[in-house]
Amino acid sequence: MSPLLLLVAAAFALEGMWLPAQLPDQAPALRSAGFSGDPAALADLHGAPLGAVVSLGGCTATFVSDTGLLITNHHCVTGMLQRAQKEGENLEETGFYAATRDDERPGGAGARVWITQSTEDVTAKVVGALSPKLGDRARNDAIDAASKRLVAACERTPGTRCRVASYYEGLQYSLIRQLELRDVRVVMAPPDMVGNYGDEVDNWHWPRHAGDFGFLRAYVGKDGKPADYSPENVPYTPPQHVTVAPRGPEPGEFVMVAGYPGRTQRWRTALEVEREATLRIPSVLEHGGWVLQTLQDRITAEPALAAKLTVPRLGLGNSVFKNKGMLEGFARAGAVEHARARDAALDAWVAADPARAAKWAAPIAELRAVITRRDATRLADERMDWLGRSTLLSAARALYLWSHEQQKPDALRELGYQDRDAPRTKAWIGDLDASLEPGTERVVFEHFLRLVLALPVDQQPPELVAWLAQSPGATADVDGTVAAALTRLYGAPTLTDKATRLALFGKKPAIFNASHDGFVSLAVALSAYDERRRDADKADQGAFSRLRPAYADALRTFDPARAYPDANSTLRVSFGTVQGYQPRDAVTYTPQTTVRGIVEKAGAWPFAAPPPLLAAIQAGQWGAWADPALGTVPVDFLADLDITGGNSGSATLDAQGRLVGLVFDSNYEGIGSDWLHEATMARSVHVDVRYVLWYLDAVAGADSLLREMGILPSVG
Amino acid sequence: MSPLLLLVAAAFALEGMWLPAQLPDQAPALRSAGFSGDPAALADLHGAPLGAVVSLGGCTATFVSDTGLLITNHHCVTGMLQRAQKEGENLEETGFYAATRDDERPGGAGARVWITQSTEDVTAKVVGALSPKLGDRARNDAIDAASKRLVAACERTPGTRCRVASYYEGLQYSLIRQLELRDVRVVMAPPDMVGNYGDEVDNWHWPRHAGDFGFLRAYVGKDGKPADYSPENVPYTPPQHVTVAPRGPEPGEFVMVAGYPGRTQRWRTALEVEREATLRIPSVLEHGGWVLQTLQDRITAEPALAAKLTVPRLGLGNSVFKNKGMLEGFARAGAVEHARARDAALDAWVAADPARAAKWAAPIAELRAVITRRDATRLADERMDWLGRSTLLSAARALYLWSHEQQKPDALRELGYQDRDAPRTKAWIGDLDASLEPGTERVVFEHFLRLVLALPVDQQPPELVAWLAQSPGATADVDGTVAAALTRLYGAPTLTDKATRLALFGKKPAIFNASHDGFVSLAVALSAYDERRRDADKADQGAFSRLRPAYADALRTFDPARAYPDANSTLRVSFGTVQGYQPRDAVTYTPQTTVRGIVEKAGAWPFAAPPPLLAAIQAGQWGAWADPALGTVPVDFLADLDITGGNSGSATLDAQGRLVGLVFDSNYEGIGSDWLHEATMARSVHVDVRYVLWYLDAVAGADSLLREMGILPSVG
Repeated sequence: MSPLLLLVAAAFALEGMWLPAQLPDQAPALRSAGFSGDPAALADLHGAPLGAVVSLGGCTATFVSDTGLLITNHHCVTGMLQRAQKEGENLEETGFYAATRDDERPGGAGARVWITQSTEDVTAKVVGALSPKLGDRARNDAIDAASKRLVAACERTPGTRCRVASYYEGLQYSLIRQLELRDVRVVMAPPDMVGNYGDEVDNWHWPRHAGDFGFLRAYVGKDGKPADYSPENVPYTPPQHVTVAPRGPEPGEFVMVAGYPGRTQRWRTALEVEREATLRIPSVLEHGGWVLQTLQDRITAEPALAAKLTVPRLGLGNSVFKNKGMLEGFARAGAVEHARARDAALDAWVAADPARAAKWAAPIAELRAVITRRDATRLADERMDWLGRSTLLSAARALYLWSHEQQKPDALRELGYQDRDAPRTKAWIGDLDASLEPGTERVVFEHFLRLVLALPVDQQPPELVAWLAQSPGATADVDGTVAAALTRLYGAPTLTDKATRLALFGKKPAIFNASHDGFVSLAVALSAYDERRRDADKADQGAFSRLRPAYADALRTFDPARAYPDANSTLRVSFGTVQGYQPRDAVTYTPQTTVRGIVEKAGAWPFAAPPPLLAAIQAGQWGAWADPALGTVPVDFLADLDITGGNSGSATLDAQGRLVGLVFDSNYEGIGSDWLHEATMARSVHVDVRYVLWYLDAVAGADSLLREMGILPSVG
Repeated sequence: MSPLLLLVAAAFALEGMWLPAQLPDQAPALRSAGFSGDPAALADLHGAPLGAVVSLGGCTATFVSDTGLLITNHHCVTGMLQRAQKEGENLEETGFYAATRDDERPGGAGARVWITQSTEDVTAKVVGALSPKLGDRARNDAIDAASKRLVAACERTPGTRCRVASYYEGLQYSLIRQLELRDVRVVMAPPDMVGNYGDEVDNWHWPRHAGDFGFLRAYVGKDGKPADYSPENVPYTPPQHVTVAPRGPEPGEFVMVAGYPGRTQRWRTALEVEREATLRIPSVLEHGGWVLQTLQDRITAEPALAAKLTVPRLGLGNSVFKNKGMLEGFARAGAVEHARARDAALDAWVAADPARAAKWAAPIAELRAVITRRDATRLADERMDWLGRSTLLSAARALYLWSHEQQKPDALRELGYQDRDAPRTKAWIGDLDASLEPGTERVVFEHFLRLVLALPVDQQPPELVAWLAQSPGATADVDGTVAAALTRLYGAPTLTDKATRLALFGKKPAIFNASHDGFVSLAVALSAYDERRRDADKADQGAFSRLRPAYADALRTFDPARAYPDANSTLRVSFGTVQGYQPRDAVTYTPQTTVRGIVEKAGAWPFAAPPPLLAAIQAGQWGAWADPALGTVPVDFLADLDITGGNSGSATLDAQGRLVGLVFDSNYEGIGSDWLHEATMARSVHVDVRYVLWYLDAVAGADSLLREMGILPSVG
């Protein structure tokens, strides 16, 4: 069977991150997967279960009590836990459990809970009034201005955060209104070697044995309104909370996930799939791989550097690994060939009917032309982007752009540079010391500077060339140019000092123009280049906003099975069943792991299971939490439901809408599914609620937490 | 469930490498596993199938035609193939197929086929007349002399090779008489990247996709008698040949293997299991691991060294890897605890009855005392043994001992130093250049010399200490001693020259005593030490020959399920069923791989599948060779029958005694089973006959070979 046939045959039922409003239409598929409730209820944002589902920004959480208790992933709680930590504590290592409300720790000034209140179709307001004669740049700006107006009006209600989200490549726009809670506290998190058992070794891999769960609580002011942290605040009373099941799912059983998946690319053209596979991913592997090796080599040579470089190394390693997996997944699934065949079939179908041809042929052709046009600057853009990853240059550019933008009226500023963005930006500018290591930056900067200077002269940004030539001691050859630039930048950088950086935040452009700091002067010099890139990109985005909807409209008419839009960080529901898979010839992954596997793996980090956990497994007191078929406590399970990043922490619900797990990862073989979902291989990884409950009961002794969820402790 | 219980519950049925004569008693187990033939027939050395099974020395092969055609593993044929190779050929890479008899290539002067003719119980002759008052050393020598007498008498028949084999730790001795064929030719071997697909990456690992098969033909003189190679020779007519099935086995189906398994240690005491787990294996991992790393580092630094060092590196890597697997297997199965519990139960049972206590208590206690006594010299012996692995020192010692022994009557010489051993020893002395790299040897020698000199002074062999002190330039400190020794040995070694080595073979001791070569002088100096070690070992072996039978006798009386003796390179039959296993939590290995997996793995070496193979898989013409359930051609399969090294190449037979595969490996999880067979984890790995037939048919076009086996080509 060819990969194409395989896909068509098997991918249909389980693919889909559905808009709540679409679920009533999915009733037959829901029923056939095993859902026993009312599909219409799944469309109600304020009903059960959606009324209980919240966004943490990059993660999802779910209310599990009427006093604001939230369950989510351990890895969605660890950042708050670090900020909540007192001198001498190592809560990541020890774990944390607040037996009383007073023991709960504030999750930091940036911690947020967003609860979707409403979605409103604003397509007409965003693009309805646009003249077809508008130029692409003007069109982009008009959409941008309309969106900002809608958001500003929406956010006039206190405690509200709003955004305009685009669906089906711009065929539809919605205004999402969310309640924003600002007092979020940490209630419980297991030790890192429970929540993150296996860490980078197990990351992406089945079988997993991570207890990736944690608990938060949302607080509001005494008036019930969103408020900043205060000891006087009271637990928030959510409109809904989900019942925690005293049981887990069985192989083959229906499961669904409600959450905030971040981004997928399943409506992209074949040209873009091809560029992803042959240009972008290989470039990440080449350049990211080089930087990764450099970081590793430096840490090996000077172990003290690990303190600064470990976080960037892990992040980059994860990205390189993910891109490697995507490339393998693309190859295995024949993603490029599949997309090409699909686009060829679409073209033939459009051409076969004069009405269709009149409507779609020209914009689809133009869309392809825009995509191809962007290739001209791809190499230079890419190398300049890698150069721009320097922390010091990023900070200098952000500070200078902020300085520039704040002179404009708020609504006309670049996205991310409005008053509403000031606290987050300032926090970032202040906090970037954590991974700032100028010696390493310098090595990486030199590497990419040489790559830029190896471009044909007409592709080198003239602003950069001019700045380089002005650097004291610069000679005409590359070596002399690079040496002078590195001395100017890294000789005595001032932005390594947090106070200096923060002092520059919000200063007038003249202060920057007069600065003698190398990075500030480079940021000033590159500002014209940056603006040119932004302008070009805005024009392209304007063109895309005009052309992509035509492609999407043609595609969904041609293939009505394409019934859901790409993920865009808005609330979605996915469903499927508990299923293993066959990663390769003669190997079957069954869909459930057990505590036996924790003992099998136990050893040195990242498998340093805490002794109390191992002792509890050894004791074998499973209480009510053993799986009857497995004879012990399950840990993680696989399901074939469709998720992506942002779903982390989402509750996994059974056919009765009860919480039976938490989703926390995807499998390696499914990495490519953000572009092309391969139903035989793509799996979501969940922690089984029985492991959560057994751990709380037998290991953490977190009885109050169990009782708050309506669960009776049953061990010991 | 504890490991002990698991073992008792599951290990019983499939464990066992049975003597042919025991098979009629195994009829119920054979029947319950699915055997449909007559168990009594399996005991007949000259009937079907045993009459068709031969030893190649370290490998097994099976006659599959009445004109001497043998099937075995690819890795049992490659040595012969290398020797058969002509200038400019690379038969390992290209594979080889002789379409006619004239094209068949002689497998070299050392190639042998041994066919077991008879076994005779000679216990009475070997140990029956020994006085209980005989000292242990004398007892050892008496057994040795009796064995040599029996062998010499037996070998008086031309074309016969004989040996005395010990069973049940010396409870029984048998004289094995084998017909020895000396003209063995290579008929067919697939390319290395078929027969050894996956090489060291897949070695020991499931899923495997190796087509580990090859064909030989045995020839005899025109008179039908064994003869050296001659173009005039004619194919041997075996008493039996096995029918090659045009089908393969299904999961759960009965399979059996007849062959020559080398060595198992399942009758050893708990003290010995413990020493294996805590002393011998860790020592191999430490010292072998160090040498392995040294070889790898040297190859990395100087790639040209790979030519000499790759073979030792691979051999050592395999050994280190195997020992690592054994340690893991011992830990998982609780081997030490299991053996301790068994010995404790045995002791209690012996003590509970005066007659049993009188018979066994004292010898078992003494056996343990001898084992413990050997600990005193273990560390020094071990370090001296690692030092003695120097190729040049090994050669010098062997040459000097040969010189010494040849002065004695043949029957009184050390085993391996009799006239019958001369050709093999001379070949080894001549051929050892292949992996001789004095620069590397010197580094390794220095390492172990320093370890010997780090022993307490009273554990250092005085002969070595004296030789070191006499070396020119030696100083009193370790550094000076080592430097002088290395200069003496490696300054101008003469044994690196093949002609020099061969010239010394058979020379009188005086020649050695007068030699100025460092290694020869060291061998002469160490000869007293070597003799002392041999003497001590002979005394211990004498004690063991007296004491181990008591332990074995007690054990088999206590536990009548222990019904078969350890493997000892004699003909055995194992049986079981085609079965996968669960290597770890949530992972299931199904028992069959397919040609699809070859494509999945294909890439750089060791997965460089030949283009004709990939093209044939792509073409998908399976002929009669597809598995109906799998829809394609199976490659390898797993069975739970019990094998060990030496079984390589053994025919896998179905319930009707037809050849359905060839065994070629064990799995990683089963490595520890030479000591303790863990039925849930230990699996044998077989190539499916359908892959052999499909390959011959669709890829190699070896129609004549198929027809000789009575198989009709069915592809194309």
